[in-house]
Amino acid sequence: MPRHFAGLLVPAITPFTAEGLPDSAAFVAICRWLLAQGADGLAVFGTTSEGTSLTVAERMTLLDAAVEGGIPPEVLMPGVGSPALGDTIALTRHAVALGCGGVLSLPPFYYKPASVEGLFAWYAGVIEGVASDNLGLWLYHIPQISGVGIPYALIERLIAAFPANVPGIKDSSGDWANTEGMLKNFPGFRVFPSSEAVLLKAMALGAVGCITATGNINPHGIRALLDARGTPQAEGLQAKAAAIRAILAVYPLIQGCKAVLSAELNDTRLAPLRPPLTPLPADQAQALRDRLAQAGWRVPGPLDPAHTPLI
Amino acid sequence: MPRHFAGLLVPAITPFTAEGLPDSAAFVAICRWLLAQGADGLAVFGTTSEGTSLTVAERMTLLDAAVEGGIPPEVLMPGVGSPALGDTIALTRHAVALGCGGVLSLPPFYYKPASVEGLFAWYAGVIEGVASDNLGLWLYHIPQISGVGIPYALIERLIAAFPANVPGIKDSSGDWANTEGMLKNFPGFRVFPSSEAVLLKAMALGAVGCITATGNINPHGIRALLDARGTPQAEGLQAKAAAIRAILAVYPLIQGCKAVLSAELNDTRLAPLRPPLTPLPADQAQALRDRLAQAGWRVPGPLDPAHTPLI
Repeated sequence: MPRHFAGLLVPAITPFTAEGLPDSAAFVAICRWLLAQGADGLAVFGTTSEGTSLTVAERMTLLDAAVEGGIPPEVLMPGVGSPALGDTIALTRHAVALGCGGVLSLPPFYYKPASVEGLFAWYAGVIEGVASDNLGLWLYHIPQISGVGIPYALIERLIAAFPANVPGIKDSSGDWANTEGMLKNFPGFRVFPSSEAVLLKAMALGAVGCITATGNINPHGIRALLDARGTPQAEGLQAKAAAIRAILAVYPLIQGCKAVLSAELNDTRLAPLRPPLTPLPADQAQALRDRLAQAGWRVPGPLDPAHTPLI
Repeated sequence: MPRHFAGLLVPAITPFTAEGLPDSAAFVAICRWLLAQGADGLAVFGTTSEGTSLTVAERMTLLDAAVEGGIPPEVLMPGVGSPALGDTIALTRHAVALGCGGVLSLPPFYYKPASVEGLFAWYAGVIEGVASDNLGLWLYHIPQISGVGIPYALIERLIAAFPANVPGIKDSSGDWANTEGMLKNFPGFRVFPSSEAVLLKAMALGAVGCITATGNINPHGIRALLDARGTPQAEGLQAKAAAIRAILAVYPLIQGCKAVLSAELNDTRLAPLRPPLTPLPADQAQALRDRLAQAGWRVPGPLDPAHTPLI
């Protein structure tokens, strides 16, 4: 049975060695750290994770390392998107075999525009190619990056054809009208907006949480917000989380997350990016850290290289 | 030494079985057929070839089959583009090891916008990762599909850093001002526009030929045009080739090429497309064939399943 994810899912950054290879040990460490700081799940190999910059073999190796390193597979929702159906099927089979709670799949993102019929055929090809009752395939709508979105007509067809395998969507459009429309049009379909800045508003309409880049930096702040829902503290924590996000969003998010975490957690493996992404210049990284500090943000505890068992 | 491609290069369509798997035998047959009809080279695994819909292993298997099937490797310029640097390096190494005359590489096409610095780092990573004097890496500019283009500033940096490895570009923008600017700004850089409709005009400014989707259908017409350059027949053949292209361009080009070739060459392996592309509806395919026939187009000879040796 696919898992009903909810709460805070973080698209964990992917650490690289100085040679540009994925660093499995550091990946396990950052995954464990994010869960220890309050994440409910990890949408590894998302956009923030530079997932599409990883080969199929690299994604599989990292996912194996995470599970071997003690990350419960049911909290993992790895990104399996690629332009080639065969690659996405292979990645999805591997994730299902490991017991992952779900997978997050971009549409095929080379050919534009793509028709609803063509996108339906692609997702149907993944689901039928994997052919498992344990598959939860979450859709990934991020048209401003992928160039190919997930229109409502596609959601409607996929839910009708594969109700057990398509539990929900990550809406990274940043377009509130689109998020609101999904929530209203598809009751029971589990919608994760990509920004904690709209978390209370979205959850009031039925959203189940958020999958957010800035969860890499502020998992504790978003955890506190989620835990305070329905209490007098909630609005204050919402404003605080939104303020932290607004500071990060001044810079490119992926680069900002890596610059802050590598410096604050004092781990050079968290700094490198793969081309075509390039690191934040040092002066901008320092300015970002200064502004976060001025806003009261503190890094929530060190990485744990000793791998203390997760609770 | 990388090859100095020139003339007509065709991004050969990729045949698939009814199960959606690449059909190596049909691929060899269509490659041989295109060369027999006048193509100077084959830019296999391009956009028209659904190259990015193929896995790394599928592209390698097809390329091996082509060479084993008697296609001279020096006429091949396989597409090696992918969002993951490691995949592009692996594909490029394989092509160079086979003796291919060059490779055609999209920029990494997931993250948008991409900086010149980031794209330079990516291409440098390919060239340095392959590290071969025999590598000719041709740039592929098709921003309306890939979402990431090749700006002049990137060409300038790549030519300066890797003069022996970056011989030219395929400009599929369809933007004449861009093609003209490349020809004027980078003397000696080998520019292939993507449309035979501008062939004489582009070659007059220094273009070395064209790499065109419609070369799948009209290799004989474009061959005749190339051979007639400088003769009184050239303008008439240019107009005729442009007219054939205009008919095809009424429909999506990839779907149109597959619909026409599968019907006219009577081979069902040439018809299927991979998602997210979907076949042309039967009535449109028929209308396209009717219009081509009315314009005097005829399919130039049958596929040769017997594999008569190429001249």
